[in-house]
Amino acid sequence: MSIEIFDSTLRDGAQAEGICFSVADKLRIASALDSIGIGYIEAGNPGSNPKDLEFFTQARQMTFRSAKLVAFGSTRRAGISAESDENVKALMRADTEVVAIFGKSWDFHVTDVIRTELEENLEMIRDTVAFFKSRGKEVIFDAEHFFDGYKANAEYAMAALKAAADGGADCLVLCDTNGGAFPETVYTVTKRVFETFDTKVGIHCHDDCGMAVANSMMAVEAGAVHVQGTYLGYGERCGNANLSTIIANLQIKLGKNCIPEEHLPDLAAVGRQMAEISNIHMNERAPYIGNSAFAHKGGMHIDGVMKSPHSFEHVVPESVGNARRFLMSEVSGKNTILTAIQKINPEIQKGSPETQAIIEKLKALEYAGYQFEGAESTFELLIRKHLGKYKPFFERIHYRIVGEQPAQADQSAYAFVKVKVDDRIEMTVAEGSGPVHALDKALRKALEVFYPVLKDVHLSDFKVRVVDTQAATAARVRVLIESTDGVHLWTTVGVSTDVIEASWLALVDSIEYKLLKELESKARAYI
Amino acid sequence: MSIEIFDSTLRDGAQAEGICFSVADKLRIASALDSIGIGYIEAGNPGSNPKDLEFFTQARQMTFRSAKLVAFGSTRRAGISAESDENVKALMRADTEVVAIFGKSWDFHVTDVIRTELEENLEMIRDTVAFFKSRGKEVIFDAEHFFDGYKANAEYAMAALKAAADGGADCLVLCDTNGGAFPETVYTVTKRVFETFDTKVGIHCHDDCGMAVANSMMAVEAGAVHVQGTYLGYGERCGNANLSTIIANLQIKLGKNCIPEEHLPDLAAVGRQMAEISNIHMNERAPYIGNSAFAHKGGMHIDGVMKSPHSFEHVVPESVGNARRFLMSEVSGKNTILTAIQKINPEIQKGSPETQAIIEKLKALEYAGYQFEGAESTFELLIRKHLGKYKPFFERIHYRIVGEQPAQADQSAYAFVKVKVDDRIEMTVAEGSGPVHALDKALRKALEVFYPVLKDVHLSDFKVRVVDTQAATAARVRVLIESTDGVHLWTTVGVSTDVIEASWLALVDSIEYKLLKELESKARAYI
Repeated sequence: MSIEIFDSTLRDGAQAEGICFSVADKLRIASALDSIGIGYIEAGNPGSNPKDLEFFTQARQMTFRSAKLVAFGSTRRAGISAESDENVKALMRADTEVVAIFGKSWDFHVTDVIRTELEENLEMIRDTVAFFKSRGKEVIFDAEHFFDGYKANAEYAMAALKAAADGGADCLVLCDTNGGAFPETVYTVTKRVFETFDTKVGIHCHDDCGMAVANSMMAVEAGAVHVQGTYLGYGERCGNANLSTIIANLQIKLGKNCIPEEHLPDLAAVGRQMAEISNIHMNERAPYIGNSAFAHKGGMHIDGVMKSPHSFEHVVPESVGNARRFLMSEVSGKNTILTAIQKINPEIQKGSPETQAIIEKLKALEYAGYQFEGAESTFELLIRKHLGKYKPFFERIHYRIVGEQPAQADQSAYAFVKVKVDDRIEMTVAEGSGPVHALDKALRKALEVFYPVLKDVHLSDFKVRVVDTQAATAARVRVLIESTDGVHLWTTVGVSTDVIEASWLALVDSIEYKLLKELESKARAYI
Repeated sequence: MSIEIFDSTLRDGAQAEGICFSVADKLRIASALDSIGIGYIEAGNPGSNPKDLEFFTQARQMTFRSAKLVAFGSTRRAGISAESDENVKALMRADTEVVAIFGKSWDFHVTDVIRTELEENLEMIRDTVAFFKSRGKEVIFDAEHFFDGYKANAEYAMAALKAAADGGADCLVLCDTNGGAFPETVYTVTKRVFETFDTKVGIHCHDDCGMAVANSMMAVEAGAVHVQGTYLGYGERCGNANLSTIIANLQIKLGKNCIPEEHLPDLAAVGRQMAEISNIHMNERAPYIGNSAFAHKGGMHIDGVMKSPHSFEHVVPESVGNARRFLMSEVSGKNTILTAIQKINPEIQKGSPETQAIIEKLKALEYAGYQFEGAESTFELLIRKHLGKYKPFFERIHYRIVGEQPAQADQSAYAFVKVKVDDRIEMTVAEGSGPVHALDKALRKALEVFYPVLKDVHLSDFKVRVVDTQAATAARVRVLIESTDGVHLWTTVGVSTDVIEASWLALVDSIEYKLLKELESKARAYI
């Protein structure tokens, strides 16, 4: 059985706090959704936001593989014809194959919010739907506040759906606009709608009670075949139903077809891409696709998964493009840390004094604000230093940064770096658009003299986190740096009360790690 | 009807990625949970983590108003008596009124993970529960993997519960350990358990399918009277059922008693406190208690809420200690921005050229990485500058920061600041534990000469966010600074490729805003 997936990241998602899409962002998100075979992409409300109209104009130049673009807007206003309504005209100008028309199905909203007659509202729904049908559009009717409306006045809520069905709507979508509905109610009410109308039934949930995903699943159980939501759950207030979760639940767990099977392993990557474009931190705890979704930390869990993965994993991580991880931390148990140690020196055992010493060091650094769960390269260097399996590639003698405003020639910072390799001292200076930028340039400039391979290295991500926000500007900051040489990615971490020093520590580790790996690969080639 | 709330933030929550509690953190979290009347606090596994034993020792010095502390551990191992099992002994040493004992109820886990006989596992459950009952403890039995176990071998899963009931368990908790269960299944299976046993039934869900809250609600519908979870949903992998959501759902929506009614308005504050102690960014989209939970952004939503709050709010925000917010952004509609403008100049109208100009400026700044949703003070200054209702309190002539490593005398940075007030130039220097710290000190030192009221101001929070992570160290950063004078709180923002300059911009706004408010209050006093 097939379920239509309708993504509203570009419309309802744009109403989330912290989200602000440019037209270019919207085009990239639409492409990402299309790339995995999402059926419908609701991309804006051209009547209320002129920028959305620009999106639809530009989107006409694009070719979508599977997705139909949807323009969203309200029914005509009271007392005028659909043809002469400005919103309706804007929807026509969007020139999409599909329109989603929302109308009121809660009597209180008709009388107290849009302030019109109950009968006129039904006419507005019927007229508007019929107008777009007569223009050849596929029309999805969003019955706003349907569950609240049904509770207050079931007869009127059902009459609103009937008006849309009479107008020729292709799908009747039951919206829990305020997010207050409970699963049993959603099931019972959806079932009644499903049994009453011949038209397809859809569902649109919000997460104000933390149950948007479950409510959507219950509606499908009751007969809905069209599910609206947003890929990462972005939306007004607490957000919309999370489609990445729903797709996996429906397709992997219930065998219902939402997207082409071969795209399931793309679910995680597309999620990360969308978070990146939206400039919102990925929710790493997100079901199926978050970085933590298959991350095991408790010692007994790790032990179980090593024996048999499904002992603590409800699906195979790779089925959604994710991966299993064993986390490095004091509660992860000695085994995980030992595995990392034995990669460096296979002879060290659980009871060896080295193991205990490294665990102690790990705890002390975690206490000081370090976190190695995302910075395995710094952790590897730490183990090597403890095992004597490490010889620094350079000695840091001194750095100094100077920053000022007004800045000279657009570069607001300078960095001086002095390092020593063998007996040779190298001192460099570089300018940058900020102190960390300048420091990175100066350090690499100094070391490229000795290690030309560093020319290929550049930073691919840079994250700053305040560790103890109570201390304000004297707080500690943790800087995570992701580096790449075009082939590999590695992450290092530094912590200090000084953001420059924290960056410096992470930069130094990044370079040390690269040089170490280079040496290892040469050694292997020699053998 | 009463539902027992059992919080496992200190045990299952500690198994979440990114969490690392000290003993002091744990004591503070236990206090916070107790302060709102949570019934049970599961605080650790003394057998597997010696730090947990230290917590229980220290916790004995504390007085809890409502909460019972719970120590968590497994059944005895195969082939030995409960008395001689090390985990059982550690549980006894924790010396708590209540113990939670987990045992296997999925046959595959018995044979393949702990690798013992099915019959022996039942004995282990019965024995261990009976042992703790004979020592006068309240015993909660956690049937690990109960729903997976029931699906694989219902008879065996029920036999595991029977063993615990026969041993005298006070509560049989059905655990969806892998988080893969669906709401209907949870309902049906819980109902069968409820009808089979006289013992109280509990529920423990994980969020791997995004349905932990709904599953917990369904179990309560089926007869469960004990709900386990973690207050903010922290836990292994995707996390545990979010208790702050569940408490509000059960108590406000279904009228079931979870915590004393007078503590419902503390739900939001306790959540923020727990996130702070856990050093995890608060999930602002969290149902009921997140900062966005009642934040309205879409123009039509704001219009509806202004007419009648329940048009777009499922509960009254104040009932859980939260507050309604109208967000400032391009999609929030002119009305919200106009309201802010009219606070400064009531004569300006929607169609005034000033309104349009401010909206344009807002869009341009948002494009450059600014975000005003959390920085209303910078936004107010922006409006004033546009309306000519603003005279700078000082002129910034120059700043320079110098940072270096090795540092001298523990202070790694110096800042020089030169400002002008009227015709007088003031130049200061200060040192700090980082460049922003030094800059803040130098700037206030310079301005206190002119404005002694600034002596009361200090920074209470400092956040750094990389806006475009693709550009690595040349990326833009947004710095949000929260300041306080002991009475009021205000937040300002700065954006730059240079973290120091971004901080400088936010610092300058913070001081300008304080001086402006000071002037206004004096003017009012004069009238």
